[in-house]
Amino acid sequence: MATLLRIDASARHTRSLTRMMSDHFLHTWHRTTSDLKVIERDVGLYPPTPISESWIDAAFTPIDRRTNEQRAQLETSDRLIDELDRSDVILMATPMYNYGLPASLKAWVDQIVRVGKTFTFDLSRGDRPLEPIFSGKTLAILTATGEFGFGAGGINADADHLVPHIRTISKYLGAESLHHIGIEYQEFADHRFEKSKADALTSVELLAQKLAELSMTHQTVS
Amino acid sequence: MATLLRIDASARHTRSLTRMMSDHFLHTWHRTTSDLKVIERDVGLYPPTPISESWIDAAFTPIDRRTNEQRAQLETSDRLIDELDRSDVILMATPMYNYGLPASLKAWVDQIVRVGKTFTFDLSRGDRPLEPIFSGKTLAILTATGEFGFGAGGINADADHLVPHIRTISKYLGAESLHHIGIEYQEFADHRFEKSKADALTSVELLAQKLAELSMTHQTVS
Repeated sequence: MATLLRIDASARHTRSLTRMMSDHFLHTWHRTTSDLKVIERDVGLYPPTPISESWIDAAFTPIDRRTNEQRAQLETSDRLIDELDRSDVILMATPMYNYGLPASLKAWVDQIVRVGKTFTFDLSRGDRPLEPIFSGKTLAILTATGEFGFGAGGINADADHLVPHIRTISKYLGAESLHHIGIEYQEFADHRFEKSKADALTSVELLAQKLAELSMTHQTVS
Repeated sequence: MATLLRIDASARHTRSLTRMMSDHFLHTWHRTTSDLKVIERDVGLYPPTPISESWIDAAFTPIDRRTNEQRAQLETSDRLIDELDRSDVILMATPMYNYGLPASLKAWVDQIVRVGKTFTFDLSRGDRPLEPIFSGKTLAILTATGEFGFGAGGINADADHLVPHIRTISKYLGAESLHHIGIEYQEFADHRFEKSKADALTSVELLAQKLAELSMTHQTVS
């Protein structure tokens, strides 16, 4: 059975476009097959703590030398990494806040990327000493932005620090297959927004169905 | 007298490169002139709360209709914006965490960028409805990264989601003059790191002296 880690990063519980998209994604998947385990991680409503100096010290202390206090410092990180480890598909639903990740989602990332757990570090590798530990996962990114035109040549080209950032980080999540669907124009609340929303929901449905079918094929093969 | 807002975003209190740089900056400024008021905002040690649904609702409620609870929701934001408002120079010392802003610094940004306080919103402006309220400030960005080569053609080109992100946000901070000095190669701990550190400290010293002298000139003129 496939395991999906659902991450919702919107601070909004009501009227959230990204939660609407992740709901729609899972609804479609379940219509295709009930064979899915879902892990829910709501960082929007329950933001993880930002990492601290004692977190860093604990993470860089060899595991057999960690004090009880240091182990306690890493408990949230351990749990979040375990959820990631168990998942085949990561469904990341996040609004763009001030052109980047919401602080709560960045706190999740900073808790996840950890030496010996999600990456190894070896200076003998030369100028690229970091290598990810996880692999083979699929990452579906669902976004909502107030503005629009973040692509090349667009009115806000070079101002998207959300999706490119997630793409850079994705290797440490073990994500090898990436998909992105975004709703734009939210703050204009006009026909462009309505069209963007409708198009995105159609794309979400197609993607969920495709990934659900793929998960069934994998199961048959294995 | 010039007012400087010092923001430290490193989770580390000890052995922090960015705190060393901001210390050096202020030390140099004070050596040039004692005429400076400093506001300290340590988001690394005291991370602001990520914004919530009730924060958003309060921010979008007209000021004369806000309940006491809504006013309380915005107290941190009010205080952080007031600190920004009073400052002529913003000294932002931040490490790169996982290729972007530390979660704590992003929480500060999300508390700062607020309708009616740091930007106005008017759909009659067309496709660019947002306009910043503050202006004329100077922003000095001091960074530290484990890796290197984030510039065009570098080994990590396109993986810097820290400085370009701050540049995009800077207009809402009222920053019109931007400076950036960065230490690279931290995780290699080799001669390249030592050179990068020495060069950065020299640049920090020159920048602090230049900005201090500029603030004295402004004072004489006004």
